[in-house]
Amino acid sequence: MKNPETARLPARSTVAILGSGDFSKCLTIRLLRCGFHVVVGSRHPKLASQSFPHVVDVTHHEDAVGKASIVFLAIRREHYSILWDLKHLLEGKILVDVSNNRRVNQYPESNAEYLASLLPDSIAVKGFNVISAWAMQQSCPKDASTQVFICSDSVEARHQIMELARQLNFLPVDMGTLSSSRDIENIPIQLFPGWKGPVLAAVALSIFFFAYAFVRDIIHPYVKYKQSDFYKIPIEMVNRTLPTVAITLLALVYLAGQLAAAHQLYYGTKYRHFPHWLEGWLQSRKQLGLLSFFLAAVHVAYSLCLPMRRSERYLLLNTEEVWRVEMYVSFGIMSLGLLSLLAITSIPSVHSTLNWREFSFIQSTLGYIALLIATFHGLLFGWKRAFEEDAYRFYLPPSFMVALALPVCVILGKVLMLLPCVARKLHRIRRGLDTNIQLYLNGYKNNMPLIV
Amino acid sequence: MKNPETARLPARSTVAILGSGDFSKCLTIRLLRCGFHVVVGSRHPKLASQSFPHVVDVTHHEDAVGKASIVFLAIRREHYSILWDLKHLLEGKILVDVSNNRRVNQYPESNAEYLASLLPDSIAVKGFNVISAWAMQQSCPKDASTQVFICSDSVEARHQIMELARQLNFLPVDMGTLSSSRDIENIPIQLFPGWKGPVLAAVALSIFFFAYAFVRDIIHPYVKYKQSDFYKIPIEMVNRTLPTVAITLLALVYLAGQLAAAHQLYYGTKYRHFPHWLEGWLQSRKQLGLLSFFLAAVHVAYSLCLPMRRSERYLLLNTEEVWRVEMYVSFGIMSLGLLSLLAITSIPSVHSTLNWREFSFIQSTLGYIALLIATFHGLLFGWKRAFEEDAYRFYLPPSFMVALALPVCVILGKVLMLLPCVARKLHRIRRGLDTNIQLYLNGYKNNMPLIV
Amino acid sequence: MKNPETARLPARSTVAILGSGDFSKCLTIRLLRCGFHVVVGSRHPKLASQSFPHVVDVTHHEDAVGKASIVFLAIRREHYSILWDLKHLLEGKILVDVSNNRRVNQYPESNAEYLASLLPDSIAVKGFNVISAWAMQQSCPKDASTQVFICSDSVEARHQIMELARQLNFLPVDMGTLSSSRDIENIPIQLFPGWKGPVLAAVALSIFFFAYAFVRDIIHPYVKYKQSDFYKIPIEMVNRTLPTVAITLLALVYLAGQLAAAHQLYYGTKYRHFPHWLEGWLQSRKQLGLLSFFLAAVHVAYSLCLPMRRSERYLLLNTEEVWRVEMYVSFGIMSLGLLSLLAITSIPSVHSTLNWREFSFIQSTLGYIALLIATFHGLLFGWKRAFEEDAYRFYLPPSFMVALALPVCVILGKVLMLLPCVARKLHRIRRGLDTNIQLYLNGYKNNMPLIV
Repeated sequence: MKNPETARLPARSTVAILGSGDFSKCLTIRLLRCGFHVVVGSRHPKLASQSFPHVVDVTHHEDAVGKASIVFLAIRREHYSILWDLKHLLEGKILVDVSNNRRVNQYPESNAEYLASLLPDSIAVKGFNVISAWAMQQSCPKDASTQVFICSDSVEARHQIMELARQLNFLPVDMGTLSSSRDIENIPIQLFPGWKGPVLAAVALSIFFFAYAFVRDIIHPYVKYKQSDFYKIPIEMVNRTLPTVAITLLALVYLAGQLAAAHQLYYGTKYRHFPHWLEGWLQSRKQLGLLSFFLAAVHVAYSLCLPMRRSERYLLLNTEEVWRVEMYVSFGIMSLGLLSLLAITSIPSVHSTLNWREFSFIQSTLGYIALLIATFHGLLFGWKRAFEEDAYRFYLPPSFMVALALPVCVILGKVLMLLPCVARKLHRIRRGLDTNIQLYLNGYKNNMPLIV
Repeated sequence: MKNPETARLPARSTVAILGSGDFSKCLTIRLLRCGFHVVVGSRHPKLASQSFPHVVDVTHHEDAVGKASIVFLAIRREHYSILWDLKHLLEGKILVDVSNNRRVNQYPESNAEYLASLLPDSIAVKGFNVISAWAMQQSCPKDASTQVFICSDSVEARHQIMELARQLNFLPVDMGTLSSSRDIENIPIQLFPGWKGPVLAAVALSIFFFAYAFVRDIIHPYVKYKQSDFYKIPIEMVNRTLPTVAITLLALVYLAGQLAAAHQLYYGTKYRHFPHWLEGWLQSRKQLGLLSFFLAAVHVAYSLCLPMRRSERYLLLNTEEVWRVEMYVSFGIMSLGLLSLLAITSIPSVHSTLNWREFSFIQSTLGYIALLIATFHGLLFGWKRAFEEDAYRFYLPPSFMVALALPVCVILGKVLMLLPCVARKLHRIRRGLDTNIQLYLNGYKNNMPLIV
Repeated sequence: MKNPETARLPARSTVAILGSGDFSKCLTIRLLRCGFHVVVGSRHPKLASQSFPHVVDVTHHEDAVGKASIVFLAIRREHYSILWDLKHLLEGKILVDVSNNRRVNQYPESNAEYLASLLPDSIAVKGFNVISAWAMQQSCPKDASTQVFICSDSVEARHQIMELARQLNFLPVDMGTLSSSRDIENIPIQLFPGWKGPVLAAVALSIFFFAYAFVRDIIHPYVKYKQSDFYKIPIEMVNRTLPTVAITLLALVYLAGQLAAAHQLYYGTKYRHFPHWLEGWLQSRKQLGLLSFFLAAVHVAYSLCLPMRRSERYLLLNTEEVWRVEMYVSFGIMSLGLLSLLAITSIPSVHSTLNWREFSFIQSTLGYIALLIATFHGLLFGWKRAFEEDAYRFYLPPSFMVALALPVCVILGKVLMLLPCVARKLHRIRRGLDTNIQLYLNGYKNNMPLIV
C-alpha cells in the first residue's frame, strides 16, 4: 500500500499550468493567494508574461512541465496534440483536464478520456471545469464554497487533486473513475436538463386547454350568435388555461408515485427497475410541482384582477379601451411573474444549483423579456393619453412617460447590441481575442493557436 | 500522544459491513465509488452476494470482521445479540452504529450506548444514520454535501470516521462523546420539533378568536334579529381570525425578548439562566414570526377577494349560490397556501434542514391535501353547471370538467392505496421484505432475521 | 521544505486562550467538545475559573502561554499592550487574533497588523472574528458549517489554523496574507455594504417621482380647479411612484451591462478596467434587480386594492372615512412587505450571508416597525368603532380590540426599553458587565480591564 500521506499537498509546492489564456490567469491568481508556486508554460513566454503577476515563472512548455508533478492543462481539446511532444516529460505526472466543450456530448469520447488515450503514461484527472474563470479569481469569500467535481482512474491522484481543491477553498466532490468525465464535462453546458420534460408537458397542456377553451368560449358564441368575445383572450382565456394546467401538473406529480407503487405491487418487489419513462417522470416530480405552484400563483393574480377590470369595463365605451385594459393588466402580471423568477434565483442556495449558462439565461434573457413586457405594460397603460393636450399639466408630461424614457432607451440599446456586426465584435472581444494583441500576434507568427 | 496521522484513512483500505440489507448495499456502492475495498458479512453469503456488485467480497460474519479495522453495523438493534459471538474478533475495532429507531426515545439508552455496553472492548462510533439508503447511493453530485453527525468516546476513532465521511463526500459534524448518540438517533425521526409549540399556539389562538368572532358576529345577530349570517363563515369569519392571530403571534415574538430583558434587568446579570419556558419561547421566535407572516399573507389574499365576492354576490339570488362562491374562493386560497409551503421546501437550503420524515410529510401529505382542496375548489366552481345542457357547447364539456378528471382519478387511486390490505402489502415490499425471496428463505431456514 | 504534515493538528493537543470573557468561555466549550485540551490565561485565575468547566486549566497568562503552541487572544485591542510582558514566551508561537472593532476602519491599521507589529517574533493569524460567542457555543448541528475567514503571512500557520477551524466544524476560507485582516475585521460590522448604493438610488428616484406626481396630480387640480385631492396620497400617489421606480431600477440593471459592453467595444479589449463607478454599478445589479422586484410586488398589491377601496369609497360620505380606508389599506400592505423581508431572511442560505448586525437589523428593527405599522393598520381599521355602543354585542368588544391589546403592550414595553436609563443598564448587562461581579471586582482591585 502506498503511503496515504501523499494525499496531502505541501503548501508552497509548485504547480504547473500549460496555456496562458483567461482560465490560466485566474487559476494562477487563486493558486498564488493560497500559497502555491506557479509556473506557466506558454508558446510565447515573453508576450504572455506581461499579463501575469511578477512572481509567476512564465516559460516554455518543456520548462514548466519539468518543475512540477501536477500540471493543469488550460488549453483547448483541439490543441491537445501539442502535448505529444511533451510525452516523455509528462510521464507519471498528474494532468488536470479543466476543459469544457461548447455542446453536450460534442465528441465521441470526453476530453479527459481523449487525453488519457493520448498520454497513457500520465495520470489524467478531470476537474475544475465547472468553475468559470471569473469565479476562479473571485476573492469574494461569501460564495467561496463552490463544488468542483473530480474523477480519475487513479485513486491517489484523485485524492491529491481533491485535497488541492480543498486548499483552494473549493468543495471537491469525488466522482469516481474517468468514465464520469463525460458527465462532468456536460454539467456546465446543460440548460436546465431536469426542466425540459416538465416544461414541455406544461406547454403541451397549455396549448390543449387554451385551444379547447377557445373553441368552446370564443368560436361557439361567434358561430352560433355572431357574438365577438375576442377581447376575452388576454385575461379570461389565459386565466381559464392556467388553473387547468396547474391542477393537471399537480395530479401528474402524484400519479407518478402511484404508478410506481402499482409497479411494485404487481411485481411484488422493490428491486425491479421501473421502466425508463417512469423513472424520468419520478425524478421530475419536483419540477412539475413547482410549475404547478407557479401557474397557480399567476392564476390567483389574474383572478384578483377580475373585479378591477370589471369595474373599469362598465365605464368604457369602445372595444379599443377594453382591449387596452385587458392587455395592460395581463402584461403587468406576466412581467411580475418573470421578475419573481429572477428574485428566486437570487437566493444563494438556488443560485448555487445553477450553472453559468442557466443563471445567465434567467438573469439576462428572462430579465430583458421582463423589462420588455413591463415597458409594454406601461405603454398600454398610457396608450393615447401621451398625445392628449390636457395630460400636460404645468407642461409636465405624465409620470409614466418620464419613467418609460429610460427603459425604452435600454431596450433600443439591447437591439443595437444584437445587430450581427456589433454582436460578433463583442463576442470576439469577450473570448479574449483582443483586436490589438491579435494584430500584433498576426505579425509575429501566423496560424497559431491564440489561446496557448 | 498517538500519531495524529492515523486520522487520515488510506484510500483503497478495506471496510467491513455486517448485514446485507438495503443500507448495506447502498453504503457498499458509495464506498466502492470512492476507492475503498468492501467486505460484507452475511448469514447467507451465497444468497446475499447476488445483490452486490461482483468486486465485493460477501462472506460470513467472522471472515468479514477479520479483514478490516472499521466495521459498519447495518443490522437492527434487535439483532445486536448476534455480535456477542464475534466479541473477540471485534476487540479493538471501530464499530460504526448506523441504526435508527422508529420512535423518539424508543429505548432507555441509545442504540450506540447499548452497543458500547455489549462490546466494551470495541470502539463504538455513532454516525451516518441521518443518511437514507437512497441518499447513500445517489451519485447526484449537486446534493452531495450532506451533513453526517458523528460521536464517540474515542477522539481518534471519531476523527477517523469523520475523515472517512469526508472521503465519501459527506460533511461530518463532530458531536463529541457517545452521550450525544441519543440526540443523533432522534434527528431523523423527529417531525418539526421546533414547530410544535408555535403551531399549537397558533391553533389555540385561532380557535379562541374564531369562537369569539362567531359569537359576536353570527350568534348575536341570529339571537337578536333572527338574521342568518352563516354564509359568512368560509370567508369573513376566517378573514377576521387570520389577522388577529397573525398580529398576536408577531407580538409574542417580541414579548419573549422583552421578558428576557426584564429578567436580565431584574437579576442584574446575563449569566443567570432563563426559566425553561422562556428559553423555549425565545428559541421558537423564528417559527412564530414565520407563522405570523404566513397567516398575514393568507389574510391579504382573502381581503383581496372581498370585492370579487361582493360584486358577484349582488347578482346572486339564492343562498346556495352565495355559499358556493364563498367556499370555492376559500378553497382556492387554502390550496395556494399549501402549495406555497411545498414550493418553499424546494429551496435547496430549506430542504437540507428537513429530515426525510419532515420532507415527506410536506411533499406527500400536505401535497395530497393541496390536491384534494384544489379539486374541491374546481368542483365548487363548476357546481351544477356540469349538468346543464347548454354547458356542452359543440358537445364539449366545460374545461374544468376535463381538467378535473385526472385529479379525481389520482385522489381515488390514493384512497385505494390507503386501504389496509393494499397499504400493508406495499409497506412490506418497501421495507425490503420481498415476497419471492421471503418464500425462498422460509423454505431455507426458519425464524431468522431476514435483514441480516 | 517543511514537513507538510504539521498542517494536521493532533486531536487532544492543547490550545491556550488569553482572556476569560464570553468569547473565551464559548471557544473553550467548542474546543473541549471537539477533543482538545484548553488552558485559559487570566489575570484573576481563581475568580475566572468559577465560570469555566472543571476540566479547563485556568491559570496566569505566563503559565497558559507556556503550555501550547497555538494561543487565542480573546482580549480587546486596547489591552494588547499587556502582551508586551509575554513577548519572549510568545516567540515563535501562533497568535490567533479574534478581535473585532466597533466601527468600520476604526483604527489606521487592522488589529491583527497592530499585533504583528507589536510582537514581530510571533506568528499573527487573523480569524474566527465573524463567529459570535453565541454561535461558538452552539451545539445545534444544523447550522454548524459556518464560514470563518483566515489570513496570515505564514502559509504554514494559516493552514494549521484552517485545519483547526475544520476540526471545530467551521468552514475555513483562505484569505491570503495578513493584509486581508482589515477586510476580515470589517465583515462582521458592516451593514449591507452592497445595498447602500441601490437603496440610495431607489430612495432618490422615489422622492423625484413622488414629487413629480404630487405636482401634477395634487397641486395642479388644486391650483387650477380648487379641487382637494390630498386623500390620494396614501394609495394613488404611492402606487404611481412604485411602478415608475421599479421599472427605472430594472432598466438601470441592464444599462450597466450595456455601458460595459460599449466600453469594451470602444477600447476593443476586455482587459481594460472599467471606471470605478461602472465597476460598482455592475456589482450592485443583483440588489437593483431585487429592489425592482420588491417595489413591483408592492405595486401589484396596491393595484389589487384599488377596487376594494373604490367600492367602499362610494358608500362613504365624509372625507374622514375616505382617509381612514386609504390609510389602513396602505399600512396593511406596508407591514406585509416588511414581514416578507423577515421571512426571506429566514431562508437558511440567505441568513448565512448576513452578519449578526444585518440579521438583527432586519429581525429586530424592521420587525418592530412591521409590528408598529400592523398595529396602526388594526387601529385605523377600527377607528371610532371601538367607542360606539352597538359594537359591544353581548358586552364583548370587537375582535380587533382584543387582538390589539397585546401588540400595544409590546410596543409600549419597547418604548420603555428604549428609555435612556433602562437602555444603558441593559447594554451594560449584555456586555457582561455584571453588576454583582463588578461590585465584587471593584472591592477586589480597582481600574482593571474587566474583560481580561
